Amino acid sequence: MTTTPSTRAPETSAGAEALRALYADWSGIIAGTPDLTTRLFRAIFDEWHQPTREPEDVSYRQDTVGGVPGIWTLPAGADASRVLLYTHGGGFAVGSAASHRKLAGHVAKALGVTAFVLDYRRAPEHPHPAQVEDGVAAFRGLLDRGIAAADVTTIGDSAGGNLAVAIALALREQGGPLPGHIIAFSPWLDMENRGETLVTNAATDALVTVPLLEGMIAGVLADGAIDPRTPLANPLYADLTGLPRLYVNAGGAESLAADATRLAANAEAAGVDVTLSVVDGMQHVFPFCAGHAPEADDEIAAIAAWYRR
Amino acid sequence: MTTTPSTRAPETSAGAEALRALYADWSGIIAGTPDLTTRLFRAIFDEWHQPTREPEDVSYRQDTVGGVPGIWTLPAGADASRVLLYTHGGGFAVGSAASHRKLAGHVAKALGVTAFVLDYRRAPEHPHPAQVEDGVAAFRGLLDRGIAAADVTTIGDSAGGNLAVAIALALREQGGPLPGHIIAFSPWLDMENRGETLVTNAATDALVTVPLLEGMIAGVLADGAIDPRTPLANPLYADLTGLPRLYVNAGGAESLAADATRLAANAEAAGVDVTLSVVDGMQHVFPFCAGHAPEADDEIAAIAAWYRR
Repeated sequence: MTTTPSTRAPETSAGAEALRALYADWSGIIAGTPDLTTRLFRAIFDEWHQPTREPEDVSYRQDTVGGVPGIWTLPAGADASRVLLYTHGGGFAVGSAASHRKLAGHVAKALGVTAFVLDYRRAPEHPHPAQVEDGVAAFRGLLDRGIAAADVTTIGDSAGGNLAVAIALALREQGGPLPGHIIAFSPWLDMENRGETLVTNAATDALVTVPLLEGMIAGVLADGAIDPRTPLANPLYADLTGLPRLYVNAGGAESLAADATRLAANAEAAGVDVTLSVVDGMQHVFPFCAGHAPEADDEIAAIAAWYRR
Repeated sequence: MTTTPSTRAPETSAGAEALRALYADWSGIIAGTPDLTTRLFRAIFDEWHQPTREPEDVSYRQDTVGGVPGIWTLPAGADASRVLLYTHGGGFAVGSAASHRKLAGHVAKALGVTAFVLDYRRAPEHPHPAQVEDGVAAFRGLLDRGIAAADVTTIGDSAGGNLAVAIALALREQGGPLPGHIIAFSPWLDMENRGETLVTNAATDALVTVPLLEGMIAGVLADGAIDPRTPLANPLYADLTGLPRLYVNAGGAESLAADATRLAANAEAAGVDVTLSVVDGMQHVFPFCAGHAPEADDEIAAIAAWYRR
């Protein structure tokens, strides 16, 4: 395993603080609105794009790939033969291609490729494995368009980071070709809430709490009908052997940091070429600060260097 | 006055229905959440972009012009010397550059120009005339960058359509050069709720109600401290003499249609070159359906033809 050294001062930037402040604001709404509906949950989480600066020289196109709707992010001059298949976060229940368009645009631009951000079916209306199925369908849709499997990167954040791994595992199960790379920002994998940072970072994480995760788990696992150790729902229980190069990150201040470190350790044990980056002081999915925070921009630049190696 | 004939069948398109359905959903939330905060009001109205398809070959850049933040929409090949100064709708209180980015992108692309979508200061934190002041400051900021006044179009929807007119009126008061064109989508002007379509279209408008407007009026007019007949807050009381070419539209199904028709009549009486388009069956700010509804695309094409005349 490659672990990247933290080079950050303990003080976080104003751009990183804006993400923390948005999370604190959401947490206040959630705490103060006991009957907050899924509908309103989705409305506030669609604000997730706000801490991200519009990436320049990127255009967008709505499309349906393999039957799954989404948004292409098309950086000027990008290599159209290479695609990031981006699965957004939000506990499998909230978030959207719209909320992650700018983040995907920053990453695609740094890597010199295009990205397709999926609007996969969300829980609780569609429990596991609907999200994995949609990701696999979109992956195959890209191949049908002539993209080489090795030129696809599955990438996502939080629950979408889980999907970036699970899609590759599902493809391996089906005997299909795998993506060339996997990138997981602050992946959320643990459907049993066993990670130690749920406790040790509870005071510093501005968003993710055990009760919040319990609600999301109930949704995606159909109120307990699906085993929380199902490997495609919880890749901490998956055999990761044969996965492609994997980049995993997390914020040092977040409750889900232990999901990233456990995934990286499991991948290492399975012989996967894995790079882990935990950046001090950062919140959940800190690349959302792209264009406004050096912590995010440096991380995305590091991922671009990793991708090109 | 030029009035454009309605060419639409009475049945509206699926894309137009999606806007109506979003409004109906919001109305259900508003009716069912008596204590809905301004914070959550803003969250749901930031979904306003959803009925709009991503315009292709348009990129974006966040900037500050004349001290006012906003988002540039930059269609590929656009004439960068011509600018739409776009003021978003939302009762002066909600909506944002983000919620209107795609709509502004469609219009800018059709006209072959760029657009700067303002994040002006919103009510109730900032009552009238903060919004007009921000618009004037941004207009002057464009001139400072070398844009000719006549190459600026003030444009907006709903409350932002009011601002598109009020900014020009404020510039005239200050003796400055005026924009070359004004475009108002479903302008909301009447701070006294006297328009007859508030009654006659109450059953067909899926969003705009008198109680909703009363709340917005209280916010922007500082709970009655500002006279609702202030011309820069309610341009139905303004002398429109000397305004540039004006395009005004409305949906035939909307409660605020009478604001558009009264503005057009007043402009005609004042000798302004005004074009009025009321499209049968359409909801408030129906150009939001751009890329998904022929009614919106046809309207934007008609505006492009008007602009080029």
